[in-house]
Amino acid sequence: MPHTVWACACVFWTPWANPARLARCQSCQSRAAFRMLRRSELASKCDILTLEVEHVNAQALEELHLKGVPVQPLPFVVKLIQDKYDQKVHLQKHRIPLPDFLKVDSEAELHEIGEKFGYPMMLKSRFGAYDGKGNAVVSDAASIPAAWEKLGGKAGKKLYVEKWAPFKMELAVMVARGVDETMNVTMRTYPVVHTVQRDSVCFTCLTPPVGVTQKEQELAQKIATDAIKSFGDARGIFGVEMFLLDDGSVLLNEIAPRPHNTGHYTMEACGVDQFEQHLRAVLGLPLGDCHLRVGGAMMVNILGQGSTPELTAQTMAPLRCALRVPDAGIHWYGKDGCVKGRKMGHITVTGFTPASALEQIRPVLKAVDGEGNSSSIEVPHKSSPSVGIIMGSDSDLPTMKDAAVVLDDFGIPYEISIVSAHRTPEYMYEYATTAADRGINVIIAGAGGAAHLPGMVAALTPLPVIGVPVKSSALSGNDSLLSIMQMPKGIPVATVAIGNAANAGLLAVRILGAANPGMRQKMAQFMANEATTVEKKRRKLEQVGWQAYLADSK
Amino acid sequence: MPHTVWACACVFWTPWANPARLARCQSCQSRAAFRMLRRSELASKCDILTLEVEHVNAQALEELHLKGVPVQPLPFVVKLIQDKYDQKVHLQKHRIPLPDFLKVDSEAELHEIGEKFGYPMMLKSRFGAYDGKGNAVVSDAASIPAAWEKLGGKAGKKLYVEKWAPFKMELAVMVARGVDETMNVTMRTYPVVHTVQRDSVCFTCLTPPVGVTQKEQELAQKIATDAIKSFGDARGIFGVEMFLLDDGSVLLNEIAPRPHNTGHYTMEACGVDQFEQHLRAVLGLPLGDCHLRVGGAMMVNILGQGSTPELTAQTMAPLRCALRVPDAGIHWYGKDGCVKGRKMGHITVTGFTPASALEQIRPVLKAVDGEGNSSSIEVPHKSSPSVGIIMGSDSDLPTMKDAAVVLDDFGIPYEISIVSAHRTPEYMYEYATTAADRGINVIIAGAGGAAHLPGMVAALTPLPVIGVPVKSSALSGNDSLLSIMQMPKGIPVATVAIGNAANAGLLAVRILGAANPGMRQKMAQFMANEATTVEKKRRKLEQVGWQAYLADSK
Repeated sequence: MPHTVWACACVFWTPWANPARLARCQSCQSRAAFRMLRRSELASKCDILTLEVEHVNAQALEELHLKGVPVQPLPFVVKLIQDKYDQKVHLQKHRIPLPDFLKVDSEAELHEIGEKFGYPMMLKSRFGAYDGKGNAVVSDAASIPAAWEKLGGKAGKKLYVEKWAPFKMELAVMVARGVDETMNVTMRTYPVVHTVQRDSVCFTCLTPPVGVTQKEQELAQKIATDAIKSFGDARGIFGVEMFLLDDGSVLLNEIAPRPHNTGHYTMEACGVDQFEQHLRAVLGLPLGDCHLRVGGAMMVNILGQGSTPELTAQTMAPLRCALRVPDAGIHWYGKDGCVKGRKMGHITVTGFTPASALEQIRPVLKAVDGEGNSSSIEVPHKSSPSVGIIMGSDSDLPTMKDAAVVLDDFGIPYEISIVSAHRTPEYMYEYATTAADRGINVIIAGAGGAAHLPGMVAALTPLPVIGVPVKSSALSGNDSLLSIMQMPKGIPVATVAIGNAANAGLLAVRILGAANPGMRQKMAQFMANEATTVEKKRRKLEQVGWQAYLADSK
Repeated sequence: MPHTVWACACVFWTPWANPARLARCQSCQSRAAFRMLRRSELASKCDILTLEVEHVNAQALEELHLKGVPVQPLPFVVKLIQDKYDQKVHLQKHRIPLPDFLKVDSEAELHEIGEKFGYPMMLKSRFGAYDGKGNAVVSDAASIPAAWEKLGGKAGKKLYVEKWAPFKMELAVMVARGVDETMNVTMRTYPVVHTVQRDSVCFTCLTPPVGVTQKEQELAQKIATDAIKSFGDARGIFGVEMFLLDDGSVLLNEIAPRPHNTGHYTMEACGVDQFEQHLRAVLGLPLGDCHLRVGGAMMVNILGQGSTPELTAQTMAPLRCALRVPDAGIHWYGKDGCVKGRKMGHITVTGFTPASALEQIRPVLKAVDGEGNSSSIEVPHKSSPSVGIIMGSDSDLPTMKDAAVVLDDFGIPYEISIVSAHRTPEYMYEYATTAADRGINVIIAGAGGAAHLPGMVAALTPLPVIGVPVKSSALSGNDSLLSIMQMPKGIPVATVAIGNAANAGLLAVRILGAANPGMRQKMAQFMANEATTVEKKRRKLEQVGWQAYLADSK
C-alpha cells in the first residue's frame, strides 16, 4: 500500500509547503518514504489522484492527466478556480448570478471603478486567497491606497474588484458530481446552510437555515447545482458559497472544488458525509444520500487563541465544554502547534430541531469567546420556535395562554400571535405557508364562532394543526367546535375540548414526542405526576370525610 | 508520536499473533519501528494502555500496571474475563442472574451434569473462545463423546458446562464506566439491542428491539450495569450479552471488556459512539451521551465468502448493494485477504423508526445470502407498525378502513385491531400501555355512542391519540363526538370530524411529518394533487355548464 494521495499531494505541490517541516510523512513520521517518492512516481501508484486543497500546482496535475493518470476534479477546473477572476468570468458566461466584478491593474483604475460600483466595494486577490486573507473592504475613495498596498497591488499582485453585495445572510451548499455505471453524470445536493463569518473566517453554520424560505433555499440549491454543471466532466464534491439578498435573490460568491468547512456538519447530520461523498464521486461509485438525518445541526469552528505556539487552555476551552454537551461531535485536527486565528478543530451539535441544536451549542459558543465575555455572547443565528400558537382575536388570549403555559413547563420554544382568518386573510396565508420553513413543527390555532382559522391554516400547511374551539357567548362554543372539527376529507384539524387550550399544548407535546423518546418520557412523567395529584386528593377524602373535604376546598 | 497502542498491543501480545505476518506496522508498512519496540518500551511511551481484544497476555499487563503504567480496563478484569468459568463465578458472587453452570473435568462428569441440567446443554471452552468457536451444543447423552472431543477435552483443554437457557431473544447492552474530575465513578448505558446469531456468529442487531417491553429493556440495562459495577475501579466500555426468557426474566450470557460488535450501531445512531466512549472512559474525560439520535438502527455483519483468500464478488455484494441504500453506513475493515466466515466489515442502516431501518436494509440482507437464495430471506427481526388503528367494534370497520387506505397510500406500516373499552377493558389496558414499546408512534381510535375508547387509550399512553367519532344511529354521532372530544384537562384526544377516518389517517401522516421533512414533503405533494383534482372539476364545470355537469355526475 503506497502512502495516501491526500497527504503527499499537499506536501509536494502547495506553494507554501515548507519541506523542512513537512519532510516527514504525517502518518508514519518516516523520512525515507518521501525522499523516494517524486510526483510521477506517486501518481503511478494511484488509482486516481484527487485533492483537498485547490492551491496546488495545476500545471503538474494537467501533465499527469495528459499522461493518462486519472485526476478528479479535472485539472482545468482546479486551474479555473485558482484564479478567482477567471472563475467569475466562466460563471458569468454560464449565466450564474454574481455580484458585478472587474479586473483592476492600477490604483487609478480602482478609483474609476469606485465611481461606477459605489462604496463600499471589495478588492480581492485573484490567486491564493482563503479565509479572508487576500480580501480588503474599500469603504471609500480615501481608503483605496491602503487597500491597494495591503493586497500587494504595488508589488504587482493580480487583483480584481467586486461590487458590494448587500446581503442579509450568507448561504452555502455542497454539491456532489459523480457518474453512474454507464458514465452518465449524477448529481446530489446537500441542504442549504446559513454561514456566519467573523473577521472574514467562517465562524458558525446552521442547517436548516432559520429565516430562509423554502423557495429561497431551492433557489440557492439550483444556482449551486447550475454552477457545478458548468464544469463539464469534473467529478468530486464542491462547496458553493452564496449571498442571500433582501429581495430573496441569491448571488454566487465563490466555489471550492473539494470538501469544505460549510460541509463539515454532514459528518453528524447526513446519511453520507462530504468526505465519503467526494471519494464516491471521484471513484465513480454511486453517490450517497444527502438528506438531513436530524432536525437541525450547528457547527462552530475552533480557532487558535493566544500569541504562543503552545496550545492554551483558552483554545481548548470549547472542546472541554463540548465534552459535556449531548450530541456534540468533536473534531480536533491534531495540527502541529497553535497559531492565532488558525482553524484547529470544529464542533457540530445536532438536535431535534434547529432551535434545540442552537440551545445545546450555546455554552460552547460562550467558551469560544472566553469566560470573561460570556455576557456579551449573541448566538449568531435566529432561533426557531417548534410550536406556533395563533388565535383569531386577543379576546381568545385568556383561553389560549394555557397552551403557552404547558409549553413553558415542557421547555418547548413557541411563538404566539394574533392571526385572523377574516380580518387579516393575507397575513393568515403568509403565516400558514411559511410556518414549516420557519422551523415550526406544530400549529395550535384557537377561534370562536364561525371559527375558520384552524381549518384554513390546515389547508395551507402540511404541518399538524390543533384546533381549540373557544367558548362563544351565543352558543357556548358549539359553533366554534363544529366549525373547527367538521373539516372535509383531505384536510384534518386535531380538535380538542371547548376552551381546553392546555390540552392543545399537551397534544403538541405528544406530537413532538411521537418520534422522540425523550419527549415521550417527559409526557409519561407528567402523566405520573397527575396521577399522584389525584392520589393525594383520594387519600385526603378517605381520611377527612366529604364534609371536611368540601369545607376545606372552599 | 509513537505508533498507536492499539495496533502494537495486539501484535506482541495475542497468543495467535503471527510475527511473520504482523512484523510490519499496519499503518506505515515499515519493519524498523517494530523491531525496536519491546513491551516495556512501548508502555513507557503511552499515557495509558488499553486494548481492543481481551485475549492478550494479562500477566504482562499486570506487571506493567504494577510498575506504574496506567492500564484500563484493569488487568484483573481482563484476566477474569479471559476465563469464562471464573467470570461466571465472579458474577454469581455479585448476584447477577446467570444460566446454571458447572466446571467439568471428564466425560464421566459431563454425563452426571447432563442428568442434572437436562439436554440440550452447552459445553464451553474456558479460554480463548469467540464467535462460537469453543462452544458445542450437547443435544443428548449420546453426543457427549463427540462434543468432548471437539472442544479438546481429551487433550486436556479446560471446559465448563452451562444449562440451556430457553431464550426467546438474545439482547445486548454496551456499558461505559469512567470517572469524573474528582475520580468518582460515572456510568452510562447504551440502548438495548436485539441480536441474532447465525452459526454462532453475530449476524444482525436491531435497536430499539421490537417486541421487548420497556420493563424488559430496563431490566436488561440494570443487569448489564450491575455486572460492570462488580469490576471495581475498571474503566472502559463493556459489551454485555444476555438472554431474554419467555417469562420476561433476563440472564447474563457473557461480557467483553472493549468495544463490541453489538455496539457498532452506535457509530451512526448515537451521539457518542462506543469507540470514542471507550477512550473517554479510559482517559477520564466526561462520558458522552448514549441516547439514540435516530428512530431505529439495524446492523448486519459482512462475513467472508468462498474458499479462496481472494475477495469474491459474493463477499463484496452487500457493500455494492449498500452504496445505493440511503442512510447506510458502510464499514470495510481492510483486512488482509478473505477467510470464509471471518468478519470483513459491517453495514448499519438507520431510519425514522425501527421498521423503516428494517425495510431499507432488506436488499442488503438479500445480497448477504446471494441472489439465488433471495426468495428464502427472512428479515430476522419483527417489523413494527408506526400507527395503530383500533375500533370498539367490527361495526366501526366500514368507517375506520378509510384510515388504513390513507396509510397504505403513504406507505406507512400500521396494525389494525378491535379493542373495546367496555367489553375488553383488560385488553385495552394492555394495548394502550404497550403501544409505545411496540414501536407505535400514533394511535387512531374510533368509537360510537358512549365512545370511551380514544380517551381511555390516551389516558394510558404518552403517544398522540386521534379520535374518530363514529356516526351513531340514535344521535348521528353527536354522542360519539362529545364523548371523544370533551376530555378533561391533562389528557387530550385529537378529534376529527364525525365518521371521517380518512382525515384521521391524514392527521397521523402530518404528525409523523412534524419532525420529518421527507414525510412533510409527501403531505405537501398530496395536498397539491388534491388541488389539481378540484381544479379539473372547476374547469369542467366552467366548460360544460351545470346541467351537463350534474347529468354527467349521475
